[in-house]
Amino acid sequence: MSLIVQKYGGSSVATPELIKNVARRVIKGYEAGNQMIVVVSAMGDTTDHLIDLMGKITDDPDPREVDMLLTTGEQVSIALLTMAIHACGYPAISLTGSQIEIKTDEKHNQAMITDIDTTRLKKELAENKIVIVAGFQGVNKNHDFTTLGRGGSDTTTVAVAAAIEADRCEIYSDVDGVYTADPRIVTDASKLDYISYHEMLELANLGANVLHPRAVELANSYNLELYIASSFNDTLGTIVRGDEEMEGKKNVVGAASDLGEIKITVERVPDEPGIAGKLFNALAAEGVNVDMIIQNLQRDELNDITFTINQEQEKKAVKVLEKINPELNIDNYHIDRDVAKISIVGAGMQSTPGIAARMFSAFGKNNINIAMITTSEIKISCLIAKEQADQALNILHKEFRLNQINN
Amino acid sequence: MSLIVQKYGGSSVATPELIKNVARRVIKGYEAGNQMIVVVSAMGDTTDHLIDLMGKITDDPDPREVDMLLTTGEQVSIALLTMAIHACGYPAISLTGSQIEIKTDEKHNQAMITDIDTTRLKKELAENKIVIVAGFQGVNKNHDFTTLGRGGSDTTTVAVAAAIEADRCEIYSDVDGVYTADPRIVTDASKLDYISYHEMLELANLGANVLHPRAVELANSYNLELYIASSFNDTLGTIVRGDEEMEGKKNVVGAASDLGEIKITVERVPDEPGIAGKLFNALAAEGVNVDMIIQNLQRDELNDITFTINQEQEKKAVKVLEKINPELNIDNYHIDRDVAKISIVGAGMQSTPGIAARMFSAFGKNNINIAMITTSEIKISCLIAKEQADQALNILHKEFRLNQINN
Repeated sequence: MSLIVQKYGGSSVATPELIKNVARRVIKGYEAGNQMIVVVSAMGDTTDHLIDLMGKITDDPDPREVDMLLTTGEQVSIALLTMAIHACGYPAISLTGSQIEIKTDEKHNQAMITDIDTTRLKKELAENKIVIVAGFQGVNKNHDFTTLGRGGSDTTTVAVAAAIEADRCEIYSDVDGVYTADPRIVTDASKLDYISYHEMLELANLGANVLHPRAVELANSYNLELYIASSFNDTLGTIVRGDEEMEGKKNVVGAASDLGEIKITVERVPDEPGIAGKLFNALAAEGVNVDMIIQNLQRDELNDITFTINQEQEKKAVKVLEKINPELNIDNYHIDRDVAKISIVGAGMQSTPGIAARMFSAFGKNNINIAMITTSEIKISCLIAKEQADQALNILHKEFRLNQINN
Repeated sequence: MSLIVQKYGGSSVATPELIKNVARRVIKGYEAGNQMIVVVSAMGDTTDHLIDLMGKITDDPDPREVDMLLTTGEQVSIALLTMAIHACGYPAISLTGSQIEIKTDEKHNQAMITDIDTTRLKKELAENKIVIVAGFQGVNKNHDFTTLGRGGSDTTTVAVAAAIEADRCEIYSDVDGVYTADPRIVTDASKLDYISYHEMLELANLGANVLHPRAVELANSYNLELYIASSFNDTLGTIVRGDEEMEGKKNVVGAASDLGEIKITVERVPDEPGIAGKLFNALAAEGVNVDMIIQNLQRDELNDITFTINQEQEKKAVKVLEKINPELNIDNYHIDRDVAKISIVGAGMQSTPGIAARMFSAFGKNNINIAMITTSEIKISCLIAKEQADQALNILHKEFRLNQINN
């Protein structure tokens, strides 16, 4: 008998029919002799509906009340899934974040889990019940409901699995698993049988919507193996686990493009110590996250500083630049919105020389100009023109033979 | 400074616009220097929507899970109302039944309130906040959410007002107050300025949908004055309070018709001791509530027994009759579905002879045949043909000059 924690995302429980489908899948696990804990998100468009209602009341809702509102979404889906399991003749019970006591800090809308009380969970499991848990939500020390922000249900799932020391943790959504690249862009992208936490983390941060980075980090901390698969079929998914031994590491396991960044170039900044520090401190103070940075001495002791940020933070960044302009003596700045960040990820990269060189020369052969480069131990990213993004992804996929990854 | 507890029903918060309207009304009370606690129901058709979803999953939902599902309805409306108050620049906070600790027994779907912890309510009031409370719901000793069944939000309101010793308790809905008769049937029905708990109880039980009997009983127990009015206008409503001194009591304050009963006649039952007892015990054992009863010796030592029940219980009652038929030697039974119960209510009735006689002769003069009669200290009810119900109500209204009730 294993203790399995499963998660079903919003699209997997979007309709009563789909909820019944999830019930059957859960029961299959239970019938096989396992103890089952199932974390669910709000039904498909429920959250959008609630946000729409809220928008008709106010533009500036209190975060505590937003959580009061949004936590109803999962409460509806856990009740309905539990009823669907009952209707098949199996014992089940639903629990909200506050009933379990998924304790969080007090930061409404993006709370962090501080502790999970497993007493109630264990009690219900001991009574042979399938336990249905509301994802995305917790409770703070004032008994106020909190939500965990983006990727909240993934985080709930991994945290519950870690707290209760589950034997398996399975994340189901409308995606079959983790692919070497987005199959909508690269037609022969292959599904990975395995991926390491660190690789997954880089890919998750790059926008592969399979699993939220927070959940990956948490799984890594607890060395908890995750299984990522679809709730709509029985295709084998992807296992996310610790790095394999050095020898087995693959050089490159995936390629991804991120179209969500813009490039800002600040021209002819005086080449004095501390100038770049002042610029990036000012941006950080306003909450602007800078991703890639290059600085190059141009001429006359003046530097160009180029950096990328998320496109949603453009207005904030411009405000900062206008504000510090007098002090920094910035000659001019301009913004390029037609950029894409193309990355390759692989834990074996660090021990294999020449990966970066292969990437650059593959781009070069195809007349793809590289504007910026950043590297980490397991990732290399290049900023290129947005219109070449899909082409670039396909080139890299071919160059590193990612369609044959599982062989 | 007074402490006011207000309740707004589902139709009063059915849309974002109406929620803003309620916010303005609440703020008016707060601006006048009062402490405000506001109990709200689920928005208009939310509950219907949830029940509809549930129906697509199962015909036989677990009562605990029904409560898990339905309690989300009020949670949505308290969050939105709180946001609407914030948007007007006033401090407010929403609380669910479980956060306040509206403690109930464990009977899901029709729980009884056992205790209300006022600690959190008082804390928030002390911080000058308007406190928005979810009606209809509580929490049992297992931390499971419960609902109070029909009239639940009225009950929450009165219970909270009693527990916190409020100065005023105001119930707002889409109805202006308590009328001498249903204005849709009796065109010159007048709104009562005052009505006693007992009178209100009889009228509430007769189906006047203004205020639930449970709430009236609770208000009576705590001698808590209630104010019933509309949230859609500023028309003066009706005050529900203790009986006035003997002299001031009105003979008849209202008339009502109830079309929800059916009449069952069991023919030629042997006139032996205990036969009626067996019949009514068997009905009670199956949960069939019997309202009016008459028994008359017919001939040959055989009795006819006639009684009325709620039409929704017809199937159950028939099952009981078929089952006990061999034992009781019932010759035959028949069911009359075309009946109406017409009642007059008034606390002064008991000290004023001749009220019943006036009712009967008014019916007689108008060729309305009376099939059954029951009386209590403050109510007289007659069963008549359904097709004469509206006429009968108008006749009584005129006979007892109810259009001039407040003079």
